[in-house]
Amino acid sequence: MRRLINDGYDAVEEMLSGYVKAHSDYVKFHPEDERVVISNKMSEEPRVGIIIGGGTGHEPLFLGYVGEDFADAAVCGNVNTSPSPEPCYNAVKAVDRGKGCLYLYGNYAGDVLNFDMGAEMAAEDGIRVETVTIKDDVYSSKNYEDRRGVAGDIFVFKAAAAAAAKGYDLDRVVEAAEKTNRNTFSMGVALSSATVPVTGKTIFHMEEGDMEIGMGIHGEPGIERSKLEPADKVVDQLLEHILEEAKLDDGSEIKVLVNGLGGLPLMDQYICYRRVEEALTEKGYKINKPMVGNYATSMDMIGMSITIVKLDEEIKELLDAPCDTPYWKE
Amino acid sequence: MRRLINDGYDAVEEMLSGYVKAHSDYVKFHPEDERVVISNKMSEEPRVGIIIGGGTGHEPLFLGYVGEDFADAAVCGNVNTSPSPEPCYNAVKAVDRGKGCLYLYGNYAGDVLNFDMGAEMAAEDGIRVETVTIKDDVYSSKNYEDRRGVAGDIFVFKAAAAAAAKGYDLDRVVEAAEKTNRNTFSMGVALSSATVPVTGKTIFHMEEGDMEIGMGIHGEPGIERSKLEPADKVVDQLLEHILEEAKLDDGSEIKVLVNGLGGLPLMDQYICYRRVEEALTEKGYKINKPMVGNYATSMDMIGMSITIVKLDEEIKELLDAPCDTPYWKE
Repeated sequence: MRRLINDGYDAVEEMLSGYVKAHSDYVKFHPEDERVVISNKMSEEPRVGIIIGGGTGHEPLFLGYVGEDFADAAVCGNVNTSPSPEPCYNAVKAVDRGKGCLYLYGNYAGDVLNFDMGAEMAAEDGIRVETVTIKDDVYSSKNYEDRRGVAGDIFVFKAAAAAAAKGYDLDRVVEAAEKTNRNTFSMGVALSSATVPVTGKTIFHMEEGDMEIGMGIHGEPGIERSKLEPADKVVDQLLEHILEEAKLDDGSEIKVLVNGLGGLPLMDQYICYRRVEEALTEKGYKINKPMVGNYATSMDMIGMSITIVKLDEEIKELLDAPCDTPYWKE
Repeated sequence: MRRLINDGYDAVEEMLSGYVKAHSDYVKFHPEDERVVISNKMSEEPRVGIIIGGGTGHEPLFLGYVGEDFADAAVCGNVNTSPSPEPCYNAVKAVDRGKGCLYLYGNYAGDVLNFDMGAEMAAEDGIRVETVTIKDDVYSSKNYEDRRGVAGDIFVFKAAAAAAAKGYDLDRVVEAAEKTNRNTFSMGVALSSATVPVTGKTIFHMEEGDMEIGMGIHGEPGIERSKLEPADKVVDQLLEHILEEAKLDDGSEIKVLVNGLGGLPLMDQYICYRRVEEALTEKGYKINKPMVGNYATSMDMIGMSITIVKLDEEIKELLDAPCDTPYWKE
């Protein structure tokens, strides 16, 4: 193992504790539930509560996007494991300001089950909670409804939070989130597995010099295991799949993210972005405010993903709206 | 190799190109020298020009700190290799606004040689250039003057840039940088080597399950190769060496950085920060605005470093002054 942790069973609690200590200007723990991280900069105006979450091991996703005019709370499960219903419910109780709440998370069965139970518990208290599950991973299923959420999560969170900050009601916030969700397309490549803290072992074995295009952030299978190719060829393959799904109009304006999965150097991420920009500009698309870096990871997994968001005036305004969190400041 | 690059010989040029494309709101290339990255947000007021640089492979160091009220230019060498004198000189010509310039970089022999030649070339044009070499790596030498610069670089850059933004003259900017330099103490641990793009090989071999405390960011030898220990024990060892050098007064206020070397997950970095905060708070020190993340890396090296800056009112004000760059916004 090449991880710097203590007992693997304590890794999540210790990480959360370190995060809250390091960013105490932005966040605090829920007073009775240390799996719920709450914004210290939550607006006192009546707004729809924005709650994000899922398994840990994807830092800075999810808790890194809790702050001002972004998520109000993050609910944190174990590594690659959904949080249980109680913290989902506790988050609602902590951030609801009379306008209801919106759960936003990647579309994984465990998360759906647990967050839905949290919403039911809140309903018994008379608090309305809606849900948008994010489905940006174009390779995860041919059927849109079955697709997983990966790095594109952050754009759906951002759009929803910006809509909430405008004072929109819950229905309109859901609408903004769903619209952004349907216009967000991602695909990734992995060159290694992640190492699980509890076992100290990798999730699966991957030979040095191999790659797997289309792999999910928990190691879900991709297209095929093949020999590592040059960055530009890998980028071109990812873009081909993404563009096939995105069906962009000529001259479309888009947001682009090259996302590191945790172990890939920034040098490589910028080398990849260079090709992404070149290829998309050649096709006549216009890139607005690109992003490069580790925004949604799988711990020490070496790899990257590309996300494209089709922009219209509304989505663009929501994504560009001011916000202040440790990992996204606009 | 588990790197996502094209031809290794093109890695630096392609990375720089990707960086400038991705952050075109912050930076541009020098019109005649693509090894010099210049701020698009350089103040037009007469200010001391702040020029940072060194070898590449440490991203976001150096170019990530070029922007508004921070560095005016970064000079970029090959991987782990000093830039040549010409770009050092070109940077001066591009950012000098009549008040002279300050070179700031880690204390490595190659950098000293080349930046000094750049300063001599500038002197022939009548432009005064001073130099502060950063020496925060406490384990790199018993003799302060021989110490290397590592992640603590960024605090010296920040202090100098904030002093320049106040309109201070070159002597006073040098003074602020030197004072911060003398009060900045770092030490790191590595669990793996970095992979060099040109060879596709690691710089040195390190067995999985081993660690080396005190290792430099280019793989310079540390105290000894030993079996990997729990994070808290590693942190305690690093802090022991750092505090021995820092000689803090009781109740001192300090800035703290837990810096990832590139391949270490954020999860592990926050686990380490948790212990750093616990240990320093127990000793009665007061931490001001801690930082956690990949601020100065060695590409895919797995490891981290801890930096402590002794604060007084002046250093604190300089470090907290507003700035806007892709990798440090205050």
